Amino acid sequence: MNDPKTSPAPFRAAVLPGDVEAVRALVAATGYFNDEEVGIAAELVAETLARGDDAGYEYLFAEQDGRVVGYSCYGRIPCSSVSWDLYWIAVHPDQQGTGLGRRLLRETEARVKAAGGLAVYAETSGKAQYASTRGFYEKSGYDTAGVFEDFYAPGDAKYTYCLRLDR
Amino acid sequence: MNDPKTSPAPFRAAVLPGDVEAVRALVAATGYFNDEEVGIAAELVAETLARGDDAGYEYLFAEQDGRVVGYSCYGRIPCSSVSWDLYWIAVHPDQQGTGLGRRLLRETEARVKAAGGLAVYAETSGKAQYASTRGFYEKSGYDTAGVFEDFYAPGDAKYTYCLRLDR
Repeated sequence: MNDPKTSPAPFRAAVLPGDVEAVRALVAATGYFNDEEVGIAAELVAETLARGDDAGYEYLFAEQDGRVVGYSCYGRIPCSSVSWDLYWIAVHPDQQGTGLGRRLLRETEARVKAAGGLAVYAETSGKAQYASTRGFYEKSGYDTAGVFEDFYAPGDAKYTYCLRLDR
Repeated sequence: MNDPKTSPAPFRAAVLPGDVEAVRALVAATGYFNDEEVGIAAELVAETLARGDDAGYEYLFAEQDGRVVGYSCYGRIPCSSVSWDLYWIAVHPDQQGTGLGRRLLRETEARVKAAGGLAVYAETSGKAQYASTRGFYEKSGYDTAGVFEDFYAPGDAKYTYCLRLDR
């Protein structure tokens, strides 16, 4: 028996034409990303629709009542045989605190590992407003692999997190 | 008077259709890059020809007798307002040791600074065969901003170098 309380709906990996606008709306709704970032998130989906696997991006979409309420976008890092980048992970504010982000992260990691990946990298800002994002990675077992001061802007560092899958 | 011994030919910034194959041949000739990397270097030039400034890549080409003998490819890092990436820099083996690499690097940095950039990032491998590449950045004033073990492959770390332009 498939109890929806204990067995949440599986994620969708296939990219659909509506995902360009769905991702744009989702990423904007989180309030964590500026206009350039929102545009890039949507653009990666459009590039994947246009170029398929050659684009180098894979996805997991979480849907509720036919609406995309969370997603991850990840891929092998060009020129690396073993390192993968979690380019995007976002959960709609309505769904935050439900464990959906953690489920998306864990399923992404499982798929990277199944594809032969040995590490997942994720980047975020050192600014106070991203403390919850940094805490999300830290509580999920990620190490701080690097800190680049003034990377995004003066006073806005880039934190690079890494989860080793081979340890 | 323009003495070629003291005033080397200026670099070309405009991208021409022949540069896709010229860059492929140049990058392959260095012996420093694998097939995937050579393909990516050429692909960035093709993407720039197709999309123009929207592609986000800028170039400097050094030519001798109508042949591309060195180049740099750089651009503002998406989502950063101040950090730029030196995606590629390569000098033909015939021209190595002439100072061309350093000239390309300095002119790239000058253009980044003129565009408002505050830092240039460059990445290379920690493997023994890239000791001269690491030495090139270190002797050019770059700091080691991060080291990511096993990044490219097990035993093959990524070194991230940074030159601050505001100090």
